[in-house]
Amino acid sequence: MDQDKLLALFEQIKKGEVSPTEALDQFKNLPFKDLDFVKIDSHRLFRKQLGEVIYSQNKKMKQLITIYNHMKELNQPKIIFTRITPKKAHQLMEMDNQLIYNEKARILYKAEIKVQQPGQIAVVTAGTTDIPVAEEAACIAEIMGNKVKRFFDCGVAGIHRLFGIYDDLVSSNVIVCAAGMEGALPSVVSGLVDVPIIALPTAIGYGANFKGVSALLTMINSCSPGIAVVNIDNGFGAGYMAGIINMRRK
Amino acid sequence: MDQDKLLALFEQIKKGEVSPTEALDQFKNLPFKDLDFVKIDSHRLFRKQLGEVIYSQNKKMKQLITIYNHMKELNQPKIIFTRITPKKAHQLMEMDNQLIYNEKARILYKAEIKVQQPGQIAVVTAGTTDIPVAEEAACIAEIMGNKVKRFFDCGVAGIHRLFGIYDDLVSSNVIVCAAGMEGALPSVVSGLVDVPIIALPTAIGYGANFKGVSALLTMINSCSPGIAVVNIDNGFGAGYMAGIINMRRK
Amino acid sequence: MDQDKLLALFEQIKKGEVSPTEALDQFKNLPFKDLDFVKIDSHRLFRKQLGEVIYSQNKKMKQLITIYNHMKELNQPKIIFTRITPKKAHQLMEMDNQLIYNEKARILYKAEIKVQQPGQIAVVTAGTTDIPVAEEAACIAEIMGNKVKRFFDCGVAGIHRLFGIYDDLVSSNVIVCAAGMEGALPSVVSGLVDVPIIALPTAIGYGANFKGVSALLTMINSCSPGIAVVNIDNGFGAGYMAGIINMRRK
Amino acid sequence: MDQDKLLALFEQIKKGEVSPTEALDQFKNLPFKDLDFVKIDSHRLFRKQLGEVIYSQNKKMKQLITIYNHMKELNQPKIIFTRITPKKAHQLMEMDNQLIYNEKARILYKAEIKVQQPGQIAVVTAGTTDIPVAEEAACIAEIMGNKVKRFFDCGVAGIHRLFGIYDDLVSSNVIVCAAGMEGALPSVVSGLVDVPIIALPTAIGYGANFKGVSALLTMINSCSPGIAVVNIDNGFGAGYMAGIINMRRK
Amino acid sequence: MDQDKLLALFEQIKKGEVSPTEALDQFKNLPFKDLDFVKIDSHRLFRKQLGEVIYSQNKKMKQLITIYNHMKELNQPKIIFTRITPKKAHQLMEMDNQLIYNEKARILYKAEIKVQQPGQIAVVTAGTTDIPVAEEAACIAEIMGNKVKRFFDCGVAGIHRLFGIYDDLVSSNVIVCAAGMEGALPSVVSGLVDVPIIALPTAIGYGANFKGVSALLTMINSCSPGIAVVNIDNGFGAGYMAGIINMRRK
Amino acid sequence: MDQDKLLALFEQIKKGEVSPTEALDQFKNLPFKDLDFVKIDSHRLFRKQLGEVIYSQNKKMKQLITIYNHMKELNQPKIIFTRITPKKAHQLMEMDNQLIYNEKARILYKAEIKVQQPGQIAVVTAGTTDIPVAEEAACIAEIMGNKVKRFFDCGVAGIHRLFGIYDDLVSSNVIVCAAGMEGALPSVVSGLVDVPIIALPTAIGYGANFKGVSALLTMINSCSPGIAVVNIDNGFGAGYMAGIINMRRK
Amino acid sequence: MDQDKLLALFEQIKKGEVSPTEALDQFKNLPFKDLDFVKIDSHRLFRKQLGEVIYSQNKKMKQLITIYNHMKELNQPKIIFTRITPKKAHQLMEMDNQLIYNEKARILYKAEIKVQQPGQIAVVTAGTTDIPVAEEAACIAEIMGNKVKRFFDCGVAGIHRLFGIYDDLVSSNVIVCAAGMEGALPSVVSGLVDVPIIALPTAIGYGANFKGVSALLTMINSCSPGIAVVNIDNGFGAGYMAGIINMRRK
Amino acid sequence: MDQDKLLALFEQIKKGEVSPTEALDQFKNLPFKDLDFVKIDSHRLFRKQLGEVIYSQNKKMKQLITIYNHMKELNQPKIIFTRITPKKAHQLMEMDNQLIYNEKARILYKAEIKVQQPGQIAVVTAGTTDIPVAEEAACIAEIMGNKVKRFFDCGVAGIHRLFGIYDDLVSSNVIVCAAGMEGALPSVVSGLVDVPIIALPTAIGYGANFKGVSALLTMINSCSPGIAVVNIDNGFGAGYMAGIINMRRK
Repeated sequence: MDQDKLLALFEQIKKGEVSPTEALDQFKNLPFKDLDFVKIDSHRLFRKQLGEVIYSQNKKMKQLITIYNHMKELNQPKIIFTRITPKKAHQLMEMDNQLIYNEKARILYKAEIKVQQPGQIAVVTAGTTDIPVAEEAACIAEIMGNKVKRFFDCGVAGIHRLFGIYDDLVSSNVIVCAAGMEGALPSVVSGLVDVPIIALPTAIGYGANFKGVSALLTMINSCSPGIAVVNIDNGFGAGYMAGIINMRRK
Repeated sequence: MDQDKLLALFEQIKKGEVSPTEALDQFKNLPFKDLDFVKIDSHRLFRKQLGEVIYSQNKKMKQLITIYNHMKELNQPKIIFTRITPKKAHQLMEMDNQLIYNEKARILYKAEIKVQQPGQIAVVTAGTTDIPVAEEAACIAEIMGNKVKRFFDCGVAGIHRLFGIYDDLVSSNVIVCAAGMEGALPSVVSGLVDVPIIALPTAIGYGANFKGVSALLTMINSCSPGIAVVNIDNGFGAGYMAGIINMRRK
Repeated sequence: MDQDKLLALFEQIKKGEVSPTEALDQFKNLPFKDLDFVKIDSHRLFRKQLGEVIYSQNKKMKQLITIYNHMKELNQPKIIFTRITPKKAHQLMEMDNQLIYNEKARILYKAEIKVQQPGQIAVVTAGTTDIPVAEEAACIAEIMGNKVKRFFDCGVAGIHRLFGIYDDLVSSNVIVCAAGMEGALPSVVSGLVDVPIIALPTAIGYGANFKGVSALLTMINSCSPGIAVVNIDNGFGAGYMAGIINMRRK
Repeated sequence: MDQDKLLALFEQIKKGEVSPTEALDQFKNLPFKDLDFVKIDSHRLFRKQLGEVIYSQNKKMKQLITIYNHMKELNQPKIIFTRITPKKAHQLMEMDNQLIYNEKARILYKAEIKVQQPGQIAVVTAGTTDIPVAEEAACIAEIMGNKVKRFFDCGVAGIHRLFGIYDDLVSSNVIVCAAGMEGALPSVVSGLVDVPIIALPTAIGYGANFKGVSALLTMINSCSPGIAVVNIDNGFGAGYMAGIINMRRK
Repeated sequence: MDQDKLLALFEQIKKGEVSPTEALDQFKNLPFKDLDFVKIDSHRLFRKQLGEVIYSQNKKMKQLITIYNHMKELNQPKIIFTRITPKKAHQLMEMDNQLIYNEKARILYKAEIKVQQPGQIAVVTAGTTDIPVAEEAACIAEIMGNKVKRFFDCGVAGIHRLFGIYDDLVSSNVIVCAAGMEGALPSVVSGLVDVPIIALPTAIGYGANFKGVSALLTMINSCSPGIAVVNIDNGFGAGYMAGIINMRRK
Repeated sequence: MDQDKLLALFEQIKKGEVSPTEALDQFKNLPFKDLDFVKIDSHRLFRKQLGEVIYSQNKKMKQLITIYNHMKELNQPKIIFTRITPKKAHQLMEMDNQLIYNEKARILYKAEIKVQQPGQIAVVTAGTTDIPVAEEAACIAEIMGNKVKRFFDCGVAGIHRLFGIYDDLVSSNVIVCAAGMEGALPSVVSGLVDVPIIALPTAIGYGANFKGVSALLTMINSCSPGIAVVNIDNGFGAGYMAGIINMRRK
Repeated sequence: MDQDKLLALFEQIKKGEVSPTEALDQFKNLPFKDLDFVKIDSHRLFRKQLGEVIYSQNKKMKQLITIYNHMKELNQPKIIFTRITPKKAHQLMEMDNQLIYNEKARILYKAEIKVQQPGQIAVVTAGTTDIPVAEEAACIAEIMGNKVKRFFDCGVAGIHRLFGIYDDLVSSNVIVCAAGMEGALPSVVSGLVDVPIIALPTAIGYGANFKGVSALLTMINSCSPGIAVVNIDNGFGAGYMAGIINMRRK
Repeated sequence: MDQDKLLALFEQIKKGEVSPTEALDQFKNLPFKDLDFVKIDSHRLFRKQLGEVIYSQNKKMKQLITIYNHMKELNQPKIIFTRITPKKAHQLMEMDNQLIYNEKARILYKAEIKVQQPGQIAVVTAGTTDIPVAEEAACIAEIMGNKVKRFFDCGVAGIHRLFGIYDDLVSSNVIVCAAGMEGALPSVVSGLVDVPIIALPTAIGYGANFKGVSALLTMINSCSPGIAVVNIDNGFGAGYMAGIINMRRK
């Protein structure tokens, strides 16, 4: 049932040719394929706050420029390019001086970073090599308007480093925990505090690590509750998940 | 927007309080969450022909009886219980003498088997142990109204057996090919005829067969085109897929 | 440094034999192995609210009774037995009429279920066979003091069922999404609402499902953000994670 | 029994030295190794319509030229090079101006694309990165003489996009559904329409996606019937399978 | 082209209506589907010597009796039931006192064991738990008419045991080497002698052995040449392979 | 060269028919197959101390009795049955009152447990369900003559429990660390002390734990050095390895 | 017991200080560690015929030259470099004009190829891309002195091609069967002839082929007996195994 | 409780405002988060002896220089760069002539190699390609102050090579056994001597070797006790583990 038919029906109601009850019956039997013109719910607040996100890995410069121009035309207020190389980022920055590049996170964005939420997100890594993925999570959460505190290189090989950040961990609304190798950090942190933990396995390791699979399995199998896991190296996903947990409305 | 509001709106149109154009605008902005009462498209012919299907494996007799009674109340014209043991099947048959049991296929059904389609489906197996799964496929396709021909025990170890059924294979609209062990049969059949083949791996085998995974991989990797694969032991899925291919309307 | 030595030190301070500054220096150099007697942080609110949790699968009746008696002696106000069979549950209930059995969830507990949090948790399942695991999640979250709404059998094969519960989904603080087979439900729900989703794969399926691994992989790989995953059939973990997300303090 | 012997036998029949019945007996006992000279069934219509197909990935320019020249000598009316780079394609196009290059599909072909079948094939993708593989499927089906309609970027993250193409989906004879990441699209489409679906997993994804394995498993395990699966990135296979389903003769 | 048509053609040749050369042309163009009546090569000596082999695992007594009776009717001179339990074997032996049961090998057979080949096959196992599978191999090779020598419990944990059987190993035509756990025995034997080795992994082991997969991988990856591998626990296959290597005709 | 030939050679030397230098030349060219009669080095102290070890899982009572009687005849001073059920153990104990059963460890042995080594082995478990496997390790090490201290239920979920045993850990010569689930304990212990750790994964867990594989991978991938791993549930192997490390002679 | 001691003993025998019987007793108790000077059996005919084999993949030119020079000094009559690139091969050929390069097989060798065995080895491939690996097998077998016949591109997609080579297959002593993709060729060939088949999986394929693993599994699981398998792409191993089967001495 | 509060408390004790017993009570209830200022145990002898270790693979020259300078400032007496390329090593050596490069081991270090332990470590490899990983183990153990003996190229294909080094093996305190391909060497060595073996799988191999996984599985599954395994190519870990076993204090 397209718009024209719908309008015609309403005209018929107006003219009294179809009674309101009969019209209702017709509606009840509408197959959902006719609902194309109905708008999907537009109250998707968080994604709107984040703006459009472009996963840039393996995209060519030419493609990125096309996408950028398209979004400029749409007057998209916020734009985020994830996994973008310094070289490509700088080329786009020459086209628009409002673009900001977080090199560690490999994120290029056009957005004001301003804390809009009362709570705090902690982003913790086991080693220094986990930082790029963790920084991606942190940066995304910040763009969404969250307050983020970073604690890097706190892995189980130096577990005492966790003691010094205990206060920050326990007072966060959610913790992102990035670890490669054996990926034991989320289990240990979860043994210390009752804060929801987004476990973020990284592909750091070699041999039977299987590019992060070992870390992912460790995290999925944690015997300590309060942990949920995202994909290997999915810093964007971890940051977004932490963000919407922290931005809870009720 | 629930039914009451909709009826109220129609009354307003009738009374001239809201013009048809204004009403249309209101509709255009309806979020889809309000569409609950709209019926999903009911022209799903094939599934209707098949009736309700109950996967009975691991269901207790008590649960099966509850389901059966529920469907009887709904006057469901066709009922199919798949993966049902002889013992449970016979208990249900005592409650309803219209139920028919295909023991090989482990299917209990209430439906008239009558060919309603011009084309033919061939169901071929590599060995005799693949028969229950293949028979499940055949029986489902028959209940849907398809003509099915069975050719069992034609595996690669006795590849010449395929010669004798060549005419039947080449004149079918679709072939279901069930095989366990190394699962090479669909590749061989596909090398002979240009008929679409639904490859149906079975869990027959041992050791590095991994309960049918080896057969599934062989079929997915076939270098001969015209093959698509369903899950291990998914006789129901293969039969249904073959059925809707054969029942093509245009 | 044990208690006796510490007391002796304090006596020395009192007597003026050791100055407070000198005592501080001694403390700064304490190796952590001497800290055994120091209590671990006791502000672990949520776990305290949950009480002691006993994973009862494969535990014998005798073991369960020993554990129960031990906790009774400790005057443990809340006790939770997860994955406990009806038979064993009823035996324990005969010993203590305050124990309540949620048969669907396979949880036996001694606790008052009372909503203590403003927000709401939605627990959604793809099929009816996913209910025990989902109910385990729901029951745990309720015992923790959360308001939980259940929506079962909303899988992708009948995706329109999600329309009717849209309002409930979008107004929840967190959604637990249980699915077996191909496990696509969390992706679909995440495509509709911006609420954090705890994806809970179940071992429902056969063949290349690998006892839930396929569902787990689907969920981990979701292209829709706002999803984090727990272990296969880990209803307890999903419920606990959803609970602490909803119970956020700031 | 080679041709000379056969001719000799016929001469014997002619001369009356061997009776027709005796000759028949000799034939009945021919071991099949003597049948080399007998032609394989030549009624393989679809493959003939497709012509010769050359999988060009990893083939060197020199090899491709040799193959091209060989087919030219054979006066092969149709030639198809799949997975061919623009550079190599253009070099061959300089040799033969009848060659056409579909860059998106990475297919170079010499064939007239003309619809010869009444039905329609829909090719749907979850994301934009799935397009090359989907376009390969579409192009192959078109070269075979099928009418193909493309619907790209309709993944579960934006599931409402499927509503707008419902009419096209439900009126197709077969749907090719390409998806990477978690690969949930075929399940969702199958939940909407009763059309046979060829699920085409793509290697798009990272981490626990395992280069498309996760998508493949999702599709194989779909709880919604009417889906069969081809190999990861096997656009050619999906297009061919869809083509022969649509070209059904009876 | 069926027999009737063929006979008719021969009659035409006889009558001179079709010349021998024209008949030959017709033959050259016969599609192979018409060759159903032509017998497959019957010179399959080894399999004939082995007779009919019935894999009895998971077959019910009733099925085994049906198969036995069927073969008796066909006057099958040799019958072999593999993987048959003592209980079932003895029931069949009561029906036919020519049946012999090798309990270690789990083989019931009706055949005279008589060495018909000059060479020798050595069957070696790593441990005592590998014996049933190895004995299956040995028994099959003997039934085929080979001379077999058994050397059990010679694994790498006691590698010196191999010294005592060196002469027998080096003078065999082929060695079957059965091993579970880490499966290193074939590598070690292959480092000592230049005799072809059929490596036979067994499912003996636990944990990361994965029911024989570890042993299989060890054997497939052997850095010592002269080894080829059969499936886990495939004693029948190893024995048959060794048998036909030893029975080489030229 | 067998004994007779060797004796003959010596007679020839004695008679002066062969010079000592000529005899040496003959020896240098002996193929090693002739060395069968030479005894393997008998200085295998530890295994001798351990006596004969019988892996009893899946062995029938009848087999165990045969083995026991055989060893009694050989006057074997020490006998160890591992993985033996209480029922079978008690039956053997009725035959020989010197046999001792460690039920937790599932070990039946005839040996005096007496510390013969100066150092200490610590056996630590993550949970209570890991105890049977850990106890097997402890019991084996004790039978070998080592001093063993047990520390059970110290997993990462309650990491502070490690503080209380720090002194014992750091003063051990070797630590056996048993853990199931995510298996993070060895990493954590290794982060605290510089003692060699034998990591012992157990099959405790469910879902993506894959019967201990996840724990094994965690341990193999540990980023903290000083860890080496044995097979899942291989308590015997861990205990033996710890024993020979502690029994170092130099 | 080193040479000096042995010589001293012989002197003692000569002098009558030790009787031959006493000397024998001393010998019987020699631990095998003293046997270092005893030569290993030198009757390893086949490997001697093959000469020294150097796996050249990933070896640098400098390393290859060092190895070559070393073997030249040893007057090694036969040398074989496998997996060597044309460039490196030609550099070595400039140093020694007796070196011959088989480019297809990627083998550089110094040896006269001369048939020294009565029997024949058939080397069959499924596709053209399997040729390098198959040619490696063929070339190795030829260098060993075997007669080899090659039959390339006979895969299941064109199964009738096997008919024309039936006579050659059935009269071979052993068949090497190389196949990638789904790897079904060995099963099919084994269904036709009773000749031992060395199945040689190749890494040809993509997606769920897992670089040859799918082909390997197909071959290991073959339901047709008379097949044993070597590692993926192990042309050398397949050729060597076929060679020693054909070179059987008795 | 921070330092200031602690100092204040001590002042109170001094002044008699708080009794020593009351002070003790306050301490007993300290949550551990207040212990940040307490120093972790500093008696980590071995790691101190090793100094700081930098895993240099994939680190850029610039990063390595930063790290080097940082450690120079700290006056770190020992520095070890593992997995460092010759080019990068030489650049650092130009900055500090005390740095020594072990090219085979790919280790750059500043440390005096001096044996400080009585016992001996044997490092054995199966092939020559395993040497870099084995040399890494040997070099690390030497830097720690251990005596190391190397025995390379002793794999199972030439098992007799082990005879010549038997005395060295049996008199070592610990053996590091590196092997790729099928990884059988540790099993064989363990069958000969009762010395603890650190099995070190290497990624040498191809096809079903899965980059060392096959070797790792072989080692984990060894039926010969006295073996524990480290990660694939983890020479550093194997050397460190062997070192601390040999450096046992009691």
